[in-house]
Amino acid sequence: MRDFIARADKVMARVRELAAISEDGSCITRRFGTAAALEAGQKVMEWMLGAGLKVRVDNIGNIRGRWEAAGPGAKTLVIGSHVDTVVDAGQWDGPLGVLMGLDLLEELIAEGVELPFNIELIAFSDEEGVRFHTTYLGSKVVTGSFEPALLERRDGDGVSLSEVIKEMGGNIGRLSGDAIAAEEWLGYFEIHIEQGPVLYERDIPVAVVSAIAGQVRAEVVIEGVAGHAGTVPMDLRRDALAGAAEFILEVERVAGSKGLVATVGKLEVVNAASNVIPGKVICSVDVRSADGVVLSRGCEQLRLGVESIGWRRGLAVGWRVVQESSPVACDGGMGLLLGRCIAAAGYEVVELVSGAGHDAVPVSAVSPVCMLFVRCYKGISHNPQESVEKRDLVAAVEVADRFLHQLSEIWKYPR
Amino acid sequence: MRDFIARADKVMARVRELAAISEDGSCITRRFGTAAALEAGQKVMEWMLGAGLKVRVDNIGNIRGRWEAAGPGAKTLVIGSHVDTVVDAGQWDGPLGVLMGLDLLEELIAEGVELPFNIELIAFSDEEGVRFHTTYLGSKVVTGSFEPALLERRDGDGVSLSEVIKEMGGNIGRLSGDAIAAEEWLGYFEIHIEQGPVLYERDIPVAVVSAIAGQVRAEVVIEGVAGHAGTVPMDLRRDALAGAAEFILEVERVAGSKGLVATVGKLEVVNAASNVIPGKVICSVDVRSADGVVLSRGCEQLRLGVESIGWRRGLAVGWRVVQESSPVACDGGMGLLLGRCIAAAGYEVVELVSGAGHDAVPVSAVSPVCMLFVRCYKGISHNPQESVEKRDLVAAVEVADRFLHQLSEIWKYPR
Repeated sequence: MRDFIARADKVMARVRELAAISEDGSCITRRFGTAAALEAGQKVMEWMLGAGLKVRVDNIGNIRGRWEAAGPGAKTLVIGSHVDTVVDAGQWDGPLGVLMGLDLLEELIAEGVELPFNIELIAFSDEEGVRFHTTYLGSKVVTGSFEPALLERRDGDGVSLSEVIKEMGGNIGRLSGDAIAAEEWLGYFEIHIEQGPVLYERDIPVAVVSAIAGQVRAEVVIEGVAGHAGTVPMDLRRDALAGAAEFILEVERVAGSKGLVATVGKLEVVNAASNVIPGKVICSVDVRSADGVVLSRGCEQLRLGVESIGWRRGLAVGWRVVQESSPVACDGGMGLLLGRCIAAAGYEVVELVSGAGHDAVPVSAVSPVCMLFVRCYKGISHNPQESVEKRDLVAAVEVADRFLHQLSEIWKYPR
Repeated sequence: MRDFIARADKVMARVRELAAISEDGSCITRRFGTAAALEAGQKVMEWMLGAGLKVRVDNIGNIRGRWEAAGPGAKTLVIGSHVDTVVDAGQWDGPLGVLMGLDLLEELIAEGVELPFNIELIAFSDEEGVRFHTTYLGSKVVTGSFEPALLERRDGDGVSLSEVIKEMGGNIGRLSGDAIAAEEWLGYFEIHIEQGPVLYERDIPVAVVSAIAGQVRAEVVIEGVAGHAGTVPMDLRRDALAGAAEFILEVERVAGSKGLVATVGKLEVVNAASNVIPGKVICSVDVRSADGVVLSRGCEQLRLGVESIGWRRGLAVGWRVVQESSPVACDGGMGLLLGRCIAAAGYEVVELVSGAGHDAVPVSAVSPVCMLFVRCYKGISHNPQESVEKRDLVAAVEVADRFLHQLSEIWKYPR
């Protein structure tokens, strides 16, 4: 008989304990390699040691606790999430997955379950990428996709990544040795807050993540003719902002179709003045979908859309892709199993696409990945208001516990 | 026999001569009270003296040259425009009217015409209002509407208007004495470039100004809910920028109706980031019309429009009027006479509303006003590209010359 409520309480208490560790006393900030991030890692290490795991800190600062399978030659299931944060962060983004994983392992060890695979619990040292403007440093090392060129990157104070690694006690020559070989991966499991409002709006505690959306970020430039707001008649204008307005509504319309979200988040009117007809507008557009074809068709539709607006209005338009990532599909088998566990725990089974990126993205290159989303208050994240209700945590503990037990049952039979 | 071509050449040469006087060698800039502005005034004064006018500099720095009527008790026709400029200005905005007026007086004096009214040619010292962010300082003094509170205003360097007046040799105690009494005004005549593209597009050299548009400038605030561009589904968004986009197109639609122009010139997305759904947008709207009723109805329609957008989209909206000025109707009689002179010179008679403000605005409080617009290249103004073609200048000289002669004929008969 497992007491999910007591386990949820313990997870919650540990999340709070980590939240007290920050670069800045007034908010939660733990950027990669800072004293606060190292202190948080130290705390996680103590907990892992307390649980009886074999613990080490790797050369990029990931805290890695292993529990070995009974027999030799076993594959490894990695359970992980990150302990670094954005600036002025919430408590839950990252720590939830690490501390839920810790709880799962503590429980399995207490039960004396003999596992047919190794479990490695990893607290990744950098997922947010705030300090060096490059995400997933921790999981890139674990998956062997860390590019040595990143070592030359410098933070806002001019300190290079290689210097930070040395300061933390890491050895840049041994980063590649920290990777788990592709053939050793059994799978990757991450528990994370949704960071979106769907579960909150639908009043459901957890969801299976079916995919992590691919993303295209483009810069759109619209050029017309600046002019005097009082003297140029409406029918002689080539107003760049009016063209941009049409584009913004077109983005909304195109993204309204299934499986696509798109956002104009930044917009600058060049040389703006209240009495000047805008001559040039630069805006961003962020397009995401779990389906690569939907994503590229959506982008093409938007690019043609802005061109048609330009043609109709006599505006010059430019479309430049600034950043691009492909969608990642989560593993169908593990997802199905996770869904069954949700149903068995008595909840409606919902599949969600993650619009935000996670460590599962680099991991997907070497391993099947699986994620469980937990409802968060109003979908608010990257914000001190980030909050998870206890009843949802209880549900997540039960579902994850069922999942690990079932996965263990399945892997007892030779494949 | 008058040689309009030679007179246009002379005007053009003087415009060029004034354009060489600037605060900055790389462009034309003559802000109120600067050494460059005083030097330009000095140059105009020399020309006025050369023409045989009685010249004085008043206490706000206006250069005023008078030619008295033959008999006593005559009223005064003021011909004027300004010699200050915006930063990085063109050659024509302001100087054209002053130097055309000078040419008209030189010609009348040379002809020995006995005028039934005084003519006072005024080169206003401040119309653009660049230095103290308040327009029409020169013509406000001449019309007795100068507010003493303005004396406390300070420029970007912390120098007050009263200090600048003293530096220029003015006496702030005598400003009110520089006003022309309301009963003395016969009328006001100003020649100015159109600063808009209508004459250029229609291939017509000059136009009668029927009115100077009234203007309302409002700040519109639209507030929604910021959110993650990847995780919030389209149907759960309250995107402030999408609401603003609808408003911008509504502004365009409403202004498309007769007699109204409206412009969203500034737009700021608060805390903008490409991956964040805009939570708050602040934008300007500039609405102008020659008809006060059309103007206030247009503003009301736009205010209700943005409220309806807010209601439909779940956005909070605010509308705050920042600046407001009433339309000024030009004098019907003088406008009719000016139109007849245009027709007599062989050109199509066009009436235009001035969307930009002019010294005629404060003058209209004490006198009938009349303006002649001259075509400028593509309507470009407040820009080094500002340009007037010689053939248009020739047309303007002929029309203005006919106008002054006819006005003089009319006023010979007692009223």
